[in-house]
Amino acid sequence: MKKNIVILGSTGSIGRQALEVVGWHNSDLQVLGIAAQRNIDLLEEQAKTFGVPYVAVEDKDAALELEHRLQGSNTRCLAGTDGILELVRIPDVDLILIAVSGLGGLLPTLEAITHNKQIALANKETLVAGGSLVTEAALKKGIRIIPVDSEHSAIFQCLEDTADVEKLLITASGGPFREMPVDQLKKITPEMALRHPTWQMGDKITIDSATLMNKGLEIIEARWLFGIDYDRIEAVIHPQSIIHSLVAYKDGAVLAQLGWPDMRVPIQYAFFYPERKRNNLHPLDLVQVGQLSFETPDLGRFPCLRLAREAGKIGGTMTAVLNAANEVAVQAFLGHKIAFNAISELVDEVMNLHNLKTGKLDLDDILEADRWARECTRQLINQQSKK
Amino acid sequence: MKKNIVILGSTGSIGRQALEVVGWHNSDLQVLGIAAQRNIDLLEEQAKTFGVPYVAVEDKDAALELEHRLQGSNTRCLAGTDGILELVRIPDVDLILIAVSGLGGLLPTLEAITHNKQIALANKETLVAGGSLVTEAALKKGIRIIPVDSEHSAIFQCLEDTADVEKLLITASGGPFREMPVDQLKKITPEMALRHPTWQMGDKITIDSATLMNKGLEIIEARWLFGIDYDRIEAVIHPQSIIHSLVAYKDGAVLAQLGWPDMRVPIQYAFFYPERKRNNLHPLDLVQVGQLSFETPDLGRFPCLRLAREAGKIGGTMTAVLNAANEVAVQAFLGHKIAFNAISELVDEVMNLHNLKTGKLDLDDILEADRWARECTRQLINQQSKK
Repeated sequence: MKKNIVILGSTGSIGRQALEVVGWHNSDLQVLGIAAQRNIDLLEEQAKTFGVPYVAVEDKDAALELEHRLQGSNTRCLAGTDGILELVRIPDVDLILIAVSGLGGLLPTLEAITHNKQIALANKETLVAGGSLVTEAALKKGIRIIPVDSEHSAIFQCLEDTADVEKLLITASGGPFREMPVDQLKKITPEMALRHPTWQMGDKITIDSATLMNKGLEIIEARWLFGIDYDRIEAVIHPQSIIHSLVAYKDGAVLAQLGWPDMRVPIQYAFFYPERKRNNLHPLDLVQVGQLSFETPDLGRFPCLRLAREAGKIGGTMTAVLNAANEVAVQAFLGHKIAFNAISELVDEVMNLHNLKTGKLDLDDILEADRWARECTRQLINQQSKK
Repeated sequence: MKKNIVILGSTGSIGRQALEVVGWHNSDLQVLGIAAQRNIDLLEEQAKTFGVPYVAVEDKDAALELEHRLQGSNTRCLAGTDGILELVRIPDVDLILIAVSGLGGLLPTLEAITHNKQIALANKETLVAGGSLVTEAALKKGIRIIPVDSEHSAIFQCLEDTADVEKLLITASGGPFREMPVDQLKKITPEMALRHPTWQMGDKITIDSATLMNKGLEIIEARWLFGIDYDRIEAVIHPQSIIHSLVAYKDGAVLAQLGWPDMRVPIQYAFFYPERKRNNLHPLDLVQVGQLSFETPDLGRFPCLRLAREAGKIGGTMTAVLNAANEVAVQAFLGHKIAFNAISELVDEVMNLHNLKTGKLDLDDILEADRWARECTRQLINQQSKK
């Protein structure tokens, strides 16, 4: 019997690769729904190629246009956030791949949990901002969240009983500026930062990789996915991106997952877990790789890593604030409005200005902290540009 | 409740480390029996230190001497191979660690299976010579053989469904002569060969590491332990001995087990599997390691690796012959009777002279092939020394 899946964010980097994986296994997988923000050209093409009965478009104008184009076809078009949540509720769907960017992953994830759908999570922000809310809901319903991030998929594959874990070691390529003199960091342009040494990814995550905020967000994500304290999650620089992460056990053994840097491996793993399916990917050749190296991350050079860990330990709404401030700052950097090193400075400043809420958070607390932090970051950017 | 164990070969390198592990966990482990060939001084000391009720000594004269010394104590002394098998049959024993050297592991392993004891196997020769016999018997009885060799323990820890395995990658330090000019190999002395770069082990296995026969024997052992064809088992040179082996899956993911080169980790793992227990070993520090490298083994330099794979593919009694010829040749090399490169030449010659028996082998077939190969190797050595 085919597994029925929905892909939210099908026109993004992960979504496109997910559909490629579906193409390899079309006798095992059926896509029942795909969703995107506004790239209706690609969405239309994907719907036709994969015979998808439901599409959803977040932007309502774009949705109207696509609905018009799809008239007479077998594909029904839904609109807005409600449309996306409707995809999640399709009764026959087994698994939802959450591959939207930013906090847009939170609502569909909660909806998927409510409707007992298995979740393949490729969106960090959902757990960074809403970790306690999401994991508590998933635990109550007995829904397993299968991570798609390569690092978390690696840990998931290496994980035995979490009570036996000594440490999670999350590897980081170190980005393109690992060896640049620190006083040069402020001169980094978006074009320089978008050249990631090992992974091909979307713009936002590529900048996060250059600042190492990505690794910070991953530490927070790992804390929620695996229920391991921050003190037992470390980042280690591994420039070749071959070891995707490691789990150190209390008996001295360390398990690791390795492979070429290719997101199609963790995507496929999440689709078929606990099975593994053959594909035509080039197998890892360690002799060709030659050598694997490791360094301690330089927290002076990469303050975002320190800020993320701080936000995680503070808890409450602080991780939502970290995430929102970073997202706005990265967009401003990509738009040439602020310098590279201003990203971490802004996040730091917004965290300092935040009126923390702790204890049991609901969805509104998280969305409000997110809204406040975005607004605050924008104001700080505007103030700076007026100076 | 304590787990009751018997350690065969307690005075050897693995046996001594196993007792060290017992010392760390004496509220969880009780040693009911220990056995050695003839080192009764250490055996007596071990029996006292660990309050062991039964000891066995293979050498009957040494056994008499120890029996005499133990009069009036709470420890009973057994003699000869029968005495060792008697240890295996002690009713309350849960697990037998087979850490004897050479083919001496075969009979106790079969006896342990007959008496439904869990087996921790630190002796390669048992599976190299008697792989089909042992694994069939274990399968029938539902006895799981937990490997103690660091490489096989690594694979065991990384193994999911064997149907999903693409390849087993067994790592090899490459020994001390990996970079020596090939024409110098014949000048290697036992003293040079006993200096292993990463592991502290017994003499026989250290020489096997220098010729890479050890890796060849491990490939044969892996074939029987995990039921994977020779074509899907590879050796890869990894001079740092940090990655202890890897399992490549058909979806492109590779799992690996890492750690400092320390046999106490796989020994403890085998004692407590599927649990892991905390110990005081220094945790792996990848930054301190700095880098891990990989090379293809040079089969011209290390013909033993090729011979072992050939013997494995031929099957039947050939792997027993390979093992026996190698054991005699290594002893002759350690006694300065033959050159280093004569080890592989002798094994090759004896394999060529062997009258192969295939099909279903019984214990006598294996013991006879072993006896024949030892005699044949000794004769060839004597003929050469007369020239």
